[in-house]
Amino acid sequence: MKQSIYKGRVLELSLETVTLPNGAQTQLELITHPGAAAVVPLQEDGTVIMIQQYRHAVGGFIYEIPAGKLHPGEDPQVCAARELEEEIGYQAAELRHLLSFFTTPGFTNEIIHIYLGTTLKPGRQHLGSDEVLQVVRFPLEQTIALINNGTIRDGKTIIGLQATYLRLPKL
Amino acid sequence: MKQSIYKGRVLELSLETVTLPNGAQTQLELITHPGAAAVVPLQEDGTVIMIQQYRHAVGGFIYEIPAGKLHPGEDPQVCAARELEEEIGYQAAELRHLLSFFTTPGFTNEIIHIYLGTTLKPGRQHLGSDEVLQVVRFPLEQTIALINNGTIRDGKTIIGLQATYLRLPKL
Repeated sequence: MKQSIYKGRVLELSLETVTLPNGAQTQLELITHPGAAAVVPLQEDGTVIMIQQYRHAVGGFIYEIPAGKLHPGEDPQVCAARELEEEIGYQAAELRHLLSFFTTPGFTNEIIHIYLGTTLKPGRQHLGSDEVLQVVRFPLEQTIALINNGTIRDGKTIIGLQATYLRLPKL
Repeated sequence: MKQSIYKGRVLELSLETVTLPNGAQTQLELITHPGAAAVVPLQEDGTVIMIQQYRHAVGGFIYEIPAGKLHPGEDPQVCAARELEEEIGYQAAELRHLLSFFTTPGFTNEIIHIYLGTTLKPGRQHLGSDEVLQVVRFPLEQTIALINNGTIRDGKTIIGLQATYLRLPKL
């Protein structure tokens, strides 16, 4: 039994009474999310183009890779290409799917599809009024150090950068 | 201005009217979460002890590292040790903090603290009635392949395994 508590612009909160595979009944608080796509924009010299974005939920600016929510029915790769251009002002001639992951499966179905964007060329940055960010650049190897010392703290960004670094010799 | 919409067992949903650093006003849907801790349990032979857990929000069983929510005011390392023993039945003589990350900062303050657990010895598994899981074991190197081929899809698990693999030569 699923009871919708609130349906907002982005999220829907429901209470669902569930029978688990072990037969136990429990009530879960679940957030329905449309999903998202993100891009690791990697230049030929090994520089990653990132953003430093204001995130009210965590109290300030954090480092991220470009990303955005899927429109209804949208191909994640189309979303990734759009967010790449809107947020950092680049287009990628090659967008390769790296992986897709559940952000926090204890309470939401949100999935983020991460792509590696290469062969970058300038496009046109276009920010929404609620997007407050600046473009920043780091060598890929330095981003791994920035993850380890706690400077880069966003989940999708850590996953995308680590996955790129781990696969790099095979690219 | 912050308006609480729903306060449940785990999550609180609020609507908050925010003035962004660029002066724009916007309304955000925010989920307040207590935070969590997770452990990568690594045996001396390079085997990682994981769980395959039922997660209703994403529609089935997924591979994860042991993890659980923080109790109010709890030290994340204490939480990590507790969840390690309760979920897989091991204690770690060494728990080293790897990193802490925001799961999905667009809508929640949830932070997960990840530890590397080594020098493992058997303890006592103790599952809650709403925890449906079995213990599984993989060589660390294989987990990286399972991330790349889409078998391991949980965010904290991917981050913890990648971070362990990247740091391993320096451990």
